[in-house]
Amino acid sequence: MNASTFTTCWLPNDKQVPTISSLHITLCSQAKVLERVCLTYLNRLYNKIEISRTMTSQSEIIIGTFNETNQECQIEMELDGFIIRNEQRKTYVLSLSEQGLLYGTFHLIEQLQLGSKREDISVVQNPSTHIRMLNHWDNMDGTIERGYAGRSIFFDQDELSYDAKRIQQYADLLASVGINKISINNVNVHRVETKLITESKLRELKELADIFSENYITLYLSINYASPIELGELQTADPLDDEVKTWWKQQTKRIYQTIPGFGGFIVKADSEHRPGPFTYGRTHADGANMLAKALAPFGGNVFWRCFVYDCLQDWRDRTTDRARAAFDHFQKLDGEFDDNVILQIKNGPMDFQVREPVSPLIGALKATNYVIEFQVTQEYTGQQIDLCYLMPQWSEVLAFDTQIKGEGTTVSDILSGNVYPSIQTGITAVVNVGNDSNWTGHEFAQANLYGYGRLAWNPRLTARTIANDWVNSTYPSVNEEVKQMIEKMLMESWVVYENYTAPLGVGWMVKTGHHYGPDVNGYEYSPWGTYHFSDRDGIGVDRTKSGSNYVNQYTEPVAEVYEDMTTCPDELLLFFHHVPYTHKLHSGKTVIQHIYDSHFEGVKQVERLILAWQQSKDELPDDLYEHISHKLNAQLENAKEWRDKVNTYYYRVSGIHDQHDRKIYR
Amino acid sequence: MNASTFTTCWLPNDKQVPTISSLHITLCSQAKVLERVCLTYLNRLYNKIEISRTMTSQSEIIIGTFNETNQECQIEMELDGFIIRNEQRKTYVLSLSEQGLLYGTFHLIEQLQLGSKREDISVVQNPSTHIRMLNHWDNMDGTIERGYAGRSIFFDQDELSYDAKRIQQYADLLASVGINKISINNVNVHRVETKLITESKLRELKELADIFSENYITLYLSINYASPIELGELQTADPLDDEVKTWWKQQTKRIYQTIPGFGGFIVKADSEHRPGPFTYGRTHADGANMLAKALAPFGGNVFWRCFVYDCLQDWRDRTTDRARAAFDHFQKLDGEFDDNVILQIKNGPMDFQVREPVSPLIGALKATNYVIEFQVTQEYTGQQIDLCYLMPQWSEVLAFDTQIKGEGTTVSDILSGNVYPSIQTGITAVVNVGNDSNWTGHEFAQANLYGYGRLAWNPRLTARTIANDWVNSTYPSVNEEVKQMIEKMLMESWVVYENYTAPLGVGWMVKTGHHYGPDVNGYEYSPWGTYHFSDRDGIGVDRTKSGSNYVNQYTEPVAEVYEDMTTCPDELLLFFHHVPYTHKLHSGKTVIQHIYDSHFEGVKQVERLILAWQQSKDELPDDLYEHISHKLNAQLENAKEWRDKVNTYYYRVSGIHDQHDRKIYR
Repeated sequence: MNASTFTTCWLPNDKQVPTISSLHITLCSQAKVLERVCLTYLNRLYNKIEISRTMTSQSEIIIGTFNETNQECQIEMELDGFIIRNEQRKTYVLSLSEQGLLYGTFHLIEQLQLGSKREDISVVQNPSTHIRMLNHWDNMDGTIERGYAGRSIFFDQDELSYDAKRIQQYADLLASVGINKISINNVNVHRVETKLITESKLRELKELADIFSENYITLYLSINYASPIELGELQTADPLDDEVKTWWKQQTKRIYQTIPGFGGFIVKADSEHRPGPFTYGRTHADGANMLAKALAPFGGNVFWRCFVYDCLQDWRDRTTDRARAAFDHFQKLDGEFDDNVILQIKNGPMDFQVREPVSPLIGALKATNYVIEFQVTQEYTGQQIDLCYLMPQWSEVLAFDTQIKGEGTTVSDILSGNVYPSIQTGITAVVNVGNDSNWTGHEFAQANLYGYGRLAWNPRLTARTIANDWVNSTYPSVNEEVKQMIEKMLMESWVVYENYTAPLGVGWMVKTGHHYGPDVNGYEYSPWGTYHFSDRDGIGVDRTKSGSNYVNQYTEPVAEVYEDMTTCPDELLLFFHHVPYTHKLHSGKTVIQHIYDSHFEGVKQVERLILAWQQSKDELPDDLYEHISHKLNAQLENAKEWRDKVNTYYYRVSGIHDQHDRKIYR
Repeated sequence: MNASTFTTCWLPNDKQVPTISSLHITLCSQAKVLERVCLTYLNRLYNKIEISRTMTSQSEIIIGTFNETNQECQIEMELDGFIIRNEQRKTYVLSLSEQGLLYGTFHLIEQLQLGSKREDISVVQNPSTHIRMLNHWDNMDGTIERGYAGRSIFFDQDELSYDAKRIQQYADLLASVGINKISINNVNVHRVETKLITESKLRELKELADIFSENYITLYLSINYASPIELGELQTADPLDDEVKTWWKQQTKRIYQTIPGFGGFIVKADSEHRPGPFTYGRTHADGANMLAKALAPFGGNVFWRCFVYDCLQDWRDRTTDRARAAFDHFQKLDGEFDDNVILQIKNGPMDFQVREPVSPLIGALKATNYVIEFQVTQEYTGQQIDLCYLMPQWSEVLAFDTQIKGEGTTVSDILSGNVYPSIQTGITAVVNVGNDSNWTGHEFAQANLYGYGRLAWNPRLTARTIANDWVNSTYPSVNEEVKQMIEKMLMESWVVYENYTAPLGVGWMVKTGHHYGPDVNGYEYSPWGTYHFSDRDGIGVDRTKSGSNYVNQYTEPVAEVYEDMTTCPDELLLFFHHVPYTHKLHSGKTVIQHIYDSHFEGVKQVERLILAWQQSKDELPDDLYEHISHKLNAQLENAKEWRDKVNTYYYRVSGIHDQHDRKIYR
């Protein structure tokens, strides 16, 4: 891959005009990355920077561990937390570890970039979670499953192929928001990718691992559960078979011989046609533990995905409910997993829809490590054509009160280790990055990458704070009014997208395969378990006691809230209940009128976004103006398609007129 | 392509055990093909054959033109007709031409194979049509658009690539049923195929043309209308541009220099994203005539397809009706086409659905040459997985009374030249052949290829006669009862397929793209102009005066029959009318009950086919038994999918229960 020009996103970039004349930095820490980061990014904010290794009277910024700087750590700190404090006109960036110093340095850079005065910066930050991970779904042929920002930054033509400079910058972007683990290949591990754990590929991977490692980001690989058969010429991949165990132990040992800092494996097993322990009548605990035992001597982990369901369901079968699957498969195994197994649970019970309830498995596992899995790449949320800033969605998920130990047991509390301190918890996500020059296709989709890191570090941050920080860091030179407009666009976008797509939590209604654009019945008679069950009288999925009883997977009183139509939140009504079109929502509207209103409104909102954007034309760089205009116009077309197809479909099937007599095609 | 084993279909094959001891043939004609055909096929029916060039007292079969045999032609014969008659224990095969002798010889072989005594054969046959053509939709990469019998027999890896022996046998199969023209490449002419008319490719094509030519089959090529741009480096393909005219004249001259017997061009222009004269504001007459003038000096023709419609229609637009398109585009141009232009009109106004009315353009053109176009390849009729013998459908089309010159002006009459003798008419079809060893994927699909040729020669043949002949020729050694069973399977199959698929002429409801299997709403909100407009009250497309007024394209009283719901035939009701589910059919059933009944019945019928087949196991060759069993089981799965999806969809939308309370999923 040739070196290409690419934007530096929210980090200070070359175009930035330094506003501060000069700066004297003392690096007490030996970590090379700190020097590089200062020379690259701090340098862009100053006309001149000087770096010394020992403190002098001229030192303005001092970066080092408490030990190196002879500063006292007066409060309880996480290993990768940091403190920024001012003393006698000197600014100290302090931590227990070099990793913490890197995060602190990036934080300082951001604060300076946002215009804070050095002397005013006073921060104590500890990450809420220890696992802050990203999953790439990159294939070695260079394509990216569910990728909307060009091709892979790691692979091409079945080979490892990357621009080291770009990868380093990517590692900077990730470290600047605290990401500490990355997997680089698709969880659907095909033939070629299966070989990534073989010796010749590992030697090639070493350099890549080193680039990430410099930034304290650990490299993981998705593996093929059937590797012993495909690579090892064994007849089986049975996790209880001795030859299989030995094969994995030897293979793992070889990996660590080549890449000592290797993180471990991501496994999608027994899911969507991937092989797994079910083939051999074994449990997922059997499968995961066998791999875990191979990794344990080297300190490696297994991330074991819980996205296990019957993807060959017969649509005629109303007794099976895909939403139940993860809980049904994994809750009963609680406590059976080894200490270095980490389950990976999608945020909702289905699959990254614009609106889903929180997975009931989160909180239900008390003696098993796990991470929640978000989707930064916008598979079902506009594919980086439509604007959809996801922090409001994730914040809602993280603030959800599972009540698993009484009121006030939020997902954030659980993931921060406050509820079951004996288990490891954290956050992972499918990333939205490709080799597009702006990294994410839609430039504003950078905010989802940035925001994901910020939320993973601190799940209690508000979506607005993150949007504000991202806009200010990314567009330092545009005027305040325009910044506020962009922030507003971001903040509204999730609701806008929800308005013109699938209503009230029912999900799907997308075109099959690629999942962009509307097809109300696209998945209705499919084997994927994703239905809305619309008929002439009503719509929605009965997941109460009278239906699949999925509600029962939640703790009381949460289960009761969803069970009861009068307390179930409007936005999730059709996820939990099949109701008549004339059912009155808490909003006072009927379901059918809500469908019409939200779809008309969604399109209007996109039109207003476009208008606001157009009115700011003169205040925006031309290329940015054109880029976003182009995306917004495509989004408008999509929104209209959704509006008209959904409204017509439900008009035809319900026969109920729009109260406001707007145009619904017949 | 390597030589592969392949079946000889309905022609005598090697396995056949000769029942007649020896035969003496006198070939008065010099045509080499006659000797080859006798030595290949007649030889398989006799222990020994002898061939002489002059008549002797031993001569039993004498093949020659009237002149060569000194026989009198007492009746009016077409050039390619033939007579078989017996005189003094000698059997004469006579014709005005060598081509006619070839047809006569094949006919004699068939009769002998069917067990007729030589002395009893007495036949006068003249083809009803002069154009009896087949169109391949083969791409040069070896794929076949809408092909279900393996890959191309002509092309592979962007090159001409064929087994000459196989092509010769194919030419024999076609000549044995009277086919006299063939085009070998897809009407969607892509980049590589555009080059087929360039010199190096033409030289390669010559040998192929010669193989067909020996059997009096003329070779045609589908061309890219934009060739002057893509090959000739012109800036335009405007048919009125002098450079364009000159380019085509020179190109055509070069073609005939290499292949003197070349037939001409097939053109799909301004259709489904193909370029055409509309680009330049010209008419289809302008476009076709320009090419015709280039071909005329060499006796070539242009086949110009009338499949022109807006494939980017907005589904919201209820004023546009795709069914109207061919008539609207071409009827007004009647009389404007050159004598060597032949329009190519699909049998129905839409696209080869299981049930459509006859295209109103047939009969409406009075001063323009044309052919009707059938689809032998089963795109919408089961894709050679499901059994669907198409002669009953085509016979109905051919017997349709257009009443264009009063009662008794059938499509057959028109195509036979009885109605407008001054225009050239005929039949063409998209073929179902690929490199599968049995040629057609489903072995019984051979009957559609065979039958097509027979019907093209004589449109008044019954479907049953053809089925009977095909079964007897193809399976001479199975017993009479089994032959009758196979014939019955064929004869029922179209109705069975119709029963479990789209009801009452409404069409489509197929999965998008590949068109196999059910998706009731698959095309409902698409840009393809193919809708059923089902809502909670009713179903069907209003094409009467109150709707698109498509009915008006038919002559009275046909238009009135379709316009009036009380006279419109049940099987086309939903093609012409939007009716309530409770509308009573002539059958006495409501529309909804008909939908339920036909879908339950369709599956039952497939089950009965399977049962009958199983009961004949002992009487069938093992490989045939297994092959057809496999296909029938796949068909049953498909039929069940159709039954349940269609029934559930219409139950959900109508809310009307099945009178017989059978299982309809909710």
